[in-house]
Amino acid sequence: MVKRILVALGGNAIKQAHEKGTVEEQFRNVKTTCKHLLEIIKRGYELVITHGNGPQVGNLMIQQEEGSKLVPPQPLDVLGAMTQGQIGYMLQQTLINYMEKEGINKPVATVVTQVLVNRDDPDFQDPHKPVGPFYTLEEAENLRRVKNYFIRKVKPSGGRVYRRVVPSPDPVKPIEGEAIRRMVDAGIIVIASGGGGIPVIEASNALKGVEAVIDKDLAGERLAEVVKADVFLVLTDVEKALLNYGKPDEKPIDKMTLEEAKKYYREGHFLPGSMGPKVLACIRFLEWGGDKAIITSLDKAIDALEGKTGTHIAKR
Amino acid sequence: MVKRILVALGGNAIKQAHEKGTVEEQFRNVKTTCKHLLEIIKRGYELVITHGNGPQVGNLMIQQEEGSKLVPPQPLDVLGAMTQGQIGYMLQQTLINYMEKEGINKPVATVVTQVLVNRDDPDFQDPHKPVGPFYTLEEAENLRRVKNYFIRKVKPSGGRVYRRVVPSPDPVKPIEGEAIRRMVDAGIIVIASGGGGIPVIEASNALKGVEAVIDKDLAGERLAEVVKADVFLVLTDVEKALLNYGKPDEKPIDKMTLEEAKKYYREGHFLPGSMGPKVLACIRFLEWGGDKAIITSLDKAIDALEGKTGTHIAKR
Repeated sequence: MVKRILVALGGNAIKQAHEKGTVEEQFRNVKTTCKHLLEIIKRGYELVITHGNGPQVGNLMIQQEEGSKLVPPQPLDVLGAMTQGQIGYMLQQTLINYMEKEGINKPVATVVTQVLVNRDDPDFQDPHKPVGPFYTLEEAENLRRVKNYFIRKVKPSGGRVYRRVVPSPDPVKPIEGEAIRRMVDAGIIVIASGGGGIPVIEASNALKGVEAVIDKDLAGERLAEVVKADVFLVLTDVEKALLNYGKPDEKPIDKMTLEEAKKYYREGHFLPGSMGPKVLACIRFLEWGGDKAIITSLDKAIDALEGKTGTHIAKR
Repeated sequence: MVKRILVALGGNAIKQAHEKGTVEEQFRNVKTTCKHLLEIIKRGYELVITHGNGPQVGNLMIQQEEGSKLVPPQPLDVLGAMTQGQIGYMLQQTLINYMEKEGINKPVATVVTQVLVNRDDPDFQDPHKPVGPFYTLEEAENLRRVKNYFIRKVKPSGGRVYRRVVPSPDPVKPIEGEAIRRMVDAGIIVIASGGGGIPVIEASNALKGVEAVIDKDLAGERLAEVVKADVFLVLTDVEKALLNYGKPDEKPIDKMTLEEAKKYYREGHFLPGSMGPKVLACIRFLEWGGDKAIITSLDKAIDALEGKTGTHIAKR
């Protein structure tokens, strides 16, 4: 039986934290990433890939702002769409190159993906996700006034300590889900829901983009449901999730049942905005009916799929 | 029998010449465009859409340059990928909204598309397609030196009369063609090969992006072949192609046979970089085996499909 897997790539799969984000750096990282993805393909899985876009959309925001005297800046939903094109292209080209070398003949395609969010999501009233450049107090107050941005102080002291914050609403479903499911059924390797997808609300019976950012693991999980994935593989920068994170008695988790995962999640073992949404995404995947969810690092992906490492979460 | 149609949208389908390119302007144009596309869908055609990206990639180039002290600029192939995300998103969202209102339930998806070009294409030695901002002589000379850009004087006089020129190689085939064909077969409306596709060459058995621009109609025609389109519809800003263009005896063409089209093309009736590549794309489509090619304006698309207007080109 062919298994279908949804792989959610971590930020370091495309840009390392210390890098500026040149095209050379990004292609270098993408090559490493695609070597691991190739191994997954060689093991016969039907593969759907999603990825983050934080640094890329941050860079675009800076460029839009710097060029704003000459060219109209685009809003965050459009910038998200741009990064899906950008990152999808790099992943797609590299994956095709690696498959070609191995004589694997499978089409790959990146799909521009909108993700529906609830217009009543509480996050719209209380945005907290920092995006884009850092501002001085003066710049921050100007942006509040002129652009109606929510701005927050994100560092205790220094000159540029303010940043724009946007809502991070909970994903409901990928709008292009049905298209993506048909593509996977047709034997296509699909890259989709990049950066958590382009957030859209339903207003007067029509989709409309909103300036927000969706967690890519939570959005990836919604996609995993639609494509009926068997396995949900969340790749990050650690080999295993930790119990008692940051405490003297912290310890790596090899296995959790769904009930254990829910209990640990409720007890606050996992950092919000970091391991928290990853574990929550895994919980949702199993509750929906998925077989198995795994959290591990990119370089341990294959070992984890073979059961040798990673944090495995299953119904029982 | 269901007919399959490839529609190549002109630049004005997304941004009018006099506009700056704000998101509001672009969505307004896209709405008009999608009203016409909806009519095509309602007539039962299987639809594949391609589009230009000139103004969008030009704006991105300016923003990249303005932000270059803070953020590494991305090369032209990556910017092309970004515009595919940007424009695909706007088209896809709007088309989905219009179909929903009419109760039409067909998935729509934009595919990031690379287009293979020949690394020996003569255009690489003699680039002539102007892209991005205008420069002074001093800036131009600096860019020639520092970035190895080809720069040309594009206006006879004034301050900023220089522009970067890039090759515009002939498209060979869309790399994602097989994926797109399977998608259309699976009932998906596909938006692809935006901006003529992301130009890639084959170097050491691997695809590699190049800084070039492909004509979107010629690239669209290659896609029409791969998806086995019956009809190739080229939308532009005029209702019909003209014989003796720009001369006192110019006259609109209602119908051409393939042989007539080839004769007129050879005789130089059609402007290079404008109607020329559109007619050439139609010629190629018929020579490949397509049923019918039509050149007309966006607002005449349906009338033209019904045979009431436009320039129709068929084998005989």
